Amino acid sequence: MYHALTLAEEAARAGEVPVGAVVLDEQGQMLAAARNRVEEDCDASAHAELLAMREAAQYCGSSRLADCTVIVTLEPCPMCAAAMSHFRIRRLVYGAYDPKGGAVDHGARHFQQPGCLHRPAEIISGLQERKAAAQLRAFFQALR
Amino acid sequence: MYHALTLAEEAARAGEVPVGAVVLDEQGQMLAAARNRVEEDCDASAHAELLAMREAAQYCGSSRLADCTVIVTLEPCPMCAAAMSHFRIRRLVYGAYDPKGGAVDHGARHFQQPGCLHRPAEIISGLQERKAAAQLRAFFQALR
Repeated sequence: MYHALTLAEEAARAGEVPVGAVVLDEQGQMLAAARNRVEEDCDASAHAELLAMREAAQYCGSSRLADCTVIVTLEPCPMCAAAMSHFRIRRLVYGAYDPKGGAVDHGARHFQQPGCLHRPAEIISGLQERKAAAQLRAFFQALR
Repeated sequence: MYHALTLAEEAARAGEVPVGAVVLDEQGQMLAAARNRVEEDCDASAHAELLAMREAAQYCGSSRLADCTVIVTLEPCPMCAAAMSHFRIRRLVYGAYDPKGGAVDHGARHFQQPGCLHRPAEIISGLQERKAAAQLRAFFQALR
């Protein structure tokens, strides 16, 4: 989470919503890391965790990341939560809660949907929540 | 839709689930076209409509596709439906219904969620449904 928070800071400096993510393998080795790049890449889907999962899958040469952990500084949105099902992510750890845009513990609660095709075996919500939330708050306050 | 169905055929020949998609601008000009590339790209998120939206946004130099139409041969999954919200897609047209994996008229019904941040102004479901469904059926029958 420390590295993900550093990536989120980097995103903010680049004018992107400060979200960072890493993907770890079974042994806890980092396979990929990314930050939000929506504006820079002209890609509304370029959320940190989706980019990190795509990079990790490419690195592993497999479209699935069955034994992997995603650590992300913000509660995943419906798109990213559903992508975690497609990638068959084993563990999800996230920082700040997102009551408006999140889809893990809020909104559609993707992994609790009856038709959800894969749920992570473990979900840890709110790790380093205060630090992650403070980054987002500072970013949006500076925008106003 | 005709072109999307042709791309879906191409996907099947490449061993991918046969789904194709195109993105059109306000005038009906094609901005991007893609087919499913999950296995080929080692990317569980490489669904036809997500690839086509990313390509179209890149082409337009904007992270949003506010006046655009997405035409896709299969009902979008939760990931792709949520991505359509992020890209601010104006119209969605899809072919085959997907009671198991779809999230427009089935499952989470993404665009009907109270917290959904953007809904297409128009959704046309089931266009060329029989042709699109037949492609998928033939593909999965050949797999067995």
